[in-house]
Amino acid sequence: MADLVAINGEIFKPEDARISVFDRGFLYGDGVYEVTRSYGRVLFALEDHIERLYRSADRIGLDIGMTREELSTELYRIHDAAQRPDRYIRVVVTRGEGKINLDPTTRLQSNIVVFVQDVPAFDPKLYETGQDIITASILRNPKKSLDPNVKSGNYLNNILALGEAKKRKAHDAVMVSAQGHVTEGTTWNIYMVQDGAYVSTPDDGDILQGITRKIIRDIIKSNGMKWVERFFTPDEMKKAPEVLSTSSIREVMGIRTVDDVTIGNGRPGPATLKLAQLYKEYVTRYCKERAR
Amino acid sequence: MADLVAINGEIFKPEDARISVFDRGFLYGDGVYEVTRSYGRVLFALEDHIERLYRSADRIGLDIGMTREELSTELYRIHDAAQRPDRYIRVVVTRGEGKINLDPTTRLQSNIVVFVQDVPAFDPKLYETGQDIITASILRNPKKSLDPNVKSGNYLNNILALGEAKKRKAHDAVMVSAQGHVTEGTTWNIYMVQDGAYVSTPDDGDILQGITRKIIRDIIKSNGMKWVERFFTPDEMKKAPEVLSTSSIREVMGIRTVDDVTIGNGRPGPATLKLAQLYKEYVTRYCKERAR
Repeated sequence: MADLVAINGEIFKPEDARISVFDRGFLYGDGVYEVTRSYGRVLFALEDHIERLYRSADRIGLDIGMTREELSTELYRIHDAAQRPDRYIRVVVTRGEGKINLDPTTRLQSNIVVFVQDVPAFDPKLYETGQDIITASILRNPKKSLDPNVKSGNYLNNILALGEAKKRKAHDAVMVSAQGHVTEGTTWNIYMVQDGAYVSTPDDGDILQGITRKIIRDIIKSNGMKWVERFFTPDEMKKAPEVLSTSSIREVMGIRTVDDVTIGNGRPGPATLKLAQLYKEYVTRYCKERAR
Repeated sequence: MADLVAINGEIFKPEDARISVFDRGFLYGDGVYEVTRSYGRVLFALEDHIERLYRSADRIGLDIGMTREELSTELYRIHDAAQRPDRYIRVVVTRGEGKINLDPTTRLQSNIVVFVQDVPAFDPKLYETGQDIITASILRNPKKSLDPNVKSGNYLNNILALGEAKKRKAHDAVMVSAQGHVTEGTTWNIYMVQDGAYVSTPDDGDILQGITRKIIRDIIKSNGMKWVERFFTPDEMKKAPEVLSTSSIREVMGIRTVDDVTIGNGRPGPATLKLAQLYKEYVTRYCKERAR
């Protein structure tokens, strides 16, 4: 099976994978998740994703019910059951199923659902042209209400932002904070290039601390390039010569327009292309060292 | 069956009611819901709940896939299948199941899940003593990010607030806005009594426009009592002679303490008890007129 779903370890065809409607993920979005992919048979940056999953769970007081090592072994077992290289893998952990009652302190058994499927294909042309994005009118959840740094099952904020983008015929949306600063895309981090430096919203700025972003930061620093963390506005970003985006699935992709304003000369610039190349090299090295 | 679940019209025992893990409610909390109860065989304020469900759905661009009249008939059909009076009924409508992809503009068939079960029992003593609540440190979702007036499947904000209450040995939590104003409880509206008036946060104040609250307002006005809508702080509320809460399920319940500060003389006062009595009379009249 190229595509499969595992529920608490039991493997199903996608069309047969069902969960109780009393699951708190279904009722309230009361769960956490991670997404990564394999290159060949190696799950990329798996330790980082597992670490972040446990951190997200800890912040909402959810007991995953197994150790990091057990989960890592389990994810490889399920991944390998698909018997295909280059898989998308998503792990969702909910607080489990029980009576209908918001109380998160009732002791329930978590439900762990793992999706293995084809890596979603971006049109390859987008890497040559860059994406068209908008700044959504809906604001990013502030961290005092629903911390964007908890990767949870509450994704309506991001969904509504993406819905705005689709209505405006754009590919995707970036979200702004109540303070007017750029935070992050709907499922990716964003950067602008300025005076030869890659500029990113600070870790504490209503963003998810992206794992790809962390790797990108390491790559930039170890290659002697400039990395700056500071707040910036959409207007400032629109004047930058380059804007780019990253995630585990998209890797590094340029941004062509923001709110119909053309960025730079309207195609991914040298800083974007160089970073995309360095990221690919990093991935290749990472997977070679962990070949199985 | 006293307790049952209907999924797209098909009735299941609760333990057999399962939904695809590709449902967007499960993956992202991408759905809306309502809760009401029957008194005898009459679903209380059903038209209001259905109207609010459609409004919530409209605000997130979700197509429920049937008319209000069809849904009303369907809810009665499912309710009656339980063959018991005095039921709790919850209807959840998700954007349906499809590929894993945040995009809400893909045309999917909504999933409609209806839960019928016993009305959750509050300890009757709580109506005599009042509840102990806290003001949660987690702030209410601001409406520019995730409108509390959309009754959606994204309930982590409320869950975390209730979790704080449980840790502090309180019954429940009220949430405060970034501006420092009292908004609402985790699943109920809140009021303070001041100079003989019932004081409630304004409709546009990061709250769900409660249906019970609307009825309460009508009752107060039609009985010649004073109703005031204005913002107030937790400190102001703690000095009020009475604080009370309402919801479809709890009806009218007094608040005994807020953050361990005793309200009034520490038991539900005359304004609370009078309103509880008038609400019961309203319900009796409502159900008598609609007896079936």
